[in-house]
Amino acid sequence: MAVYTEVSDEALRAFLAGYDLGELIAFRGIAEGVENSNYALKTTGGDFILTLYERRVDPAELPWFLGLMRHLAARGLACPQPVAGHDGEALRALAGRPAAICTFLPGVWPRRPAVAHCGPLGGALAALHAAGDGFSAERPNSLGPQAWGPLLERCRPNGDTVQPGLCAELDGHLASILQDWPPLSGPGALPRGHIHADLFPDNVFFLEGTDRRPRVSGLIDFYFACTDTLAYDVAICLNAWCFEPDLAFNVTKARALLAGYNAVRPLSTDEMAALPVLCRGAALRFLLTRLYDWANTPPGAMVTRKDPLEYLRRLRFHAAAKEVSAYGV
Amino acid sequence: MAVYTEVSDEALRAFLAGYDLGELIAFRGIAEGVENSNYALKTTGGDFILTLYERRVDPAELPWFLGLMRHLAARGLACPQPVAGHDGEALRALAGRPAAICTFLPGVWPRRPAVAHCGPLGGALAALHAAGDGFSAERPNSLGPQAWGPLLERCRPNGDTVQPGLCAELDGHLASILQDWPPLSGPGALPRGHIHADLFPDNVFFLEGTDRRPRVSGLIDFYFACTDTLAYDVAICLNAWCFEPDLAFNVTKARALLAGYNAVRPLSTDEMAALPVLCRGAALRFLLTRLYDWANTPPGAMVTRKDPLEYLRRLRFHAAAKEVSAYGV
Repeated sequence: MAVYTEVSDEALRAFLAGYDLGELIAFRGIAEGVENSNYALKTTGGDFILTLYERRVDPAELPWFLGLMRHLAARGLACPQPVAGHDGEALRALAGRPAAICTFLPGVWPRRPAVAHCGPLGGALAALHAAGDGFSAERPNSLGPQAWGPLLERCRPNGDTVQPGLCAELDGHLASILQDWPPLSGPGALPRGHIHADLFPDNVFFLEGTDRRPRVSGLIDFYFACTDTLAYDVAICLNAWCFEPDLAFNVTKARALLAGYNAVRPLSTDEMAALPVLCRGAALRFLLTRLYDWANTPPGAMVTRKDPLEYLRRLRFHAAAKEVSAYGV
Repeated sequence: MAVYTEVSDEALRAFLAGYDLGELIAFRGIAEGVENSNYALKTTGGDFILTLYERRVDPAELPWFLGLMRHLAARGLACPQPVAGHDGEALRALAGRPAAICTFLPGVWPRRPAVAHCGPLGGALAALHAAGDGFSAERPNSLGPQAWGPLLERCRPNGDTVQPGLCAELDGHLASILQDWPPLSGPGALPRGHIHADLFPDNVFFLEGTDRRPRVSGLIDFYFACTDTLAYDVAICLNAWCFEPDLAFNVTKARALLAGYNAVRPLSTDEMAALPVLCRGAALRFLLTRLYDWANTPPGAMVTRKDPLEYLRRLRFHAAAKEVSAYGV
């Protein structure tokens, strides 16, 4: 829940004067997202989201994120569309932070994802991958496999305070994951493209269709997006959507997610075969960043620390699974 | 910043089925208010605020708060209006909490209140006091003078850790305030009515008029409202609106606030004469609850602890002031 930067009335009005959005009607902080400050902005021109980019986002990378969102929206993907000011520029500054206004997306993110969400989610993820085609600028994944070793080293001083023996177990997983990881080029290399890399339930909005079934109304929060193996994004979603609150894997959800994805962009045999190791990698990636945050969040910080051990449970499931049949296919 | 209770999709849809608000469009947690969980709710019927009442609100008192808001709105005051369900009932239950939907108010609360806000604020406060007339049910002020002694006792074990000698200084202020406090009845008693009792800047929305000057577009958060001395509400606002960030008193703001109030409901000579002690009491009330929270908020709680010493500075100003002329009149 996040509003890290307060915006004064004067600064807000001066900022809005750079746009053609009409008169200000309302401006409320949104208690969602943990990386940036987000405000719901209502003007006579409609509803918008104003984002102030905080410490974890590199300002130099913002043009890439906004450019990708613009590209995806132009290709018909329901994602926030950066709104340009009078000067044609969407990336501006407010209250000492880089800032941008994006279009408001209708929908509600599912607090308890059901099987009925997983098919549409898979379809939306595949549509995102397809829509990213043709956006030529690349952004390396700064939290990809090459980052996991150094991240584990930074967790080592405090990691075992979370659970004795944790770091040694992770050493084993990391070595095995890196050994099995698909090559980035040459034979066995998997299709690459622009991935969301953080498509958790709170980043996917749904509305009910006329048949009362959920359909995806929008994807948000592209600030971890990068250029990487497309199937790795599927693996992230299998981790984020297909485990129950007791951390049991729900194979029906996985089957629905993969079927929804395949209906839009069929996964190749190689991609399917790589899913188990990609899932292990995805679980390790979220485990490591949560572990680092757990050990380094000052008490009293206005951030909910997420339990890293939830991802250890997932990682162990994937390590035991090995075969793609464990995912319902 | 507050969303303490998450609401599942199923629970939300079942809850909305009890209303005639049309189809759900969006549902976002709001990062404002520290007592309750607030969501911005958008349906095909418009914009609304859904509030889940958390621990500090006594469920038995909710009908009084909602009834007062309904009464004030019916008298033309711009405040949230409880929305009744099909059964005529506005107070319902959701996610194990008492809950109510209220109308959405346009406007932006001033992060840095200026002199130009203080006149309209004073006028809106007087309008609230006038509109409360005729709402016959009373609610005693549970944080009034009779509560300050016991509250100070509860702060005593940890109070001096905030500042050495603090409790002894507060003992002196409390004794002098109670001695000078205006009588509740008989000669010298001041007009009573329903007061907001927490009209800080984040509870007052403004929009610019066609003359580009701020006008009040709404008052929110009536969950400290009670039946008490009307001029005490003015004293709370003098504390909340008329000190600069460096805690210097801005007499121009006070003059504007009082002029705005007097234009709608003129303060009597007795009320004016009582302002200094009412201001001392108001400063002590916020000092004590902040001090209690400071000493009793667990580290890591998702709440910003507010510095109690800001109110010691205010209290000392009022104690030195004594005469109402210090407030610009």
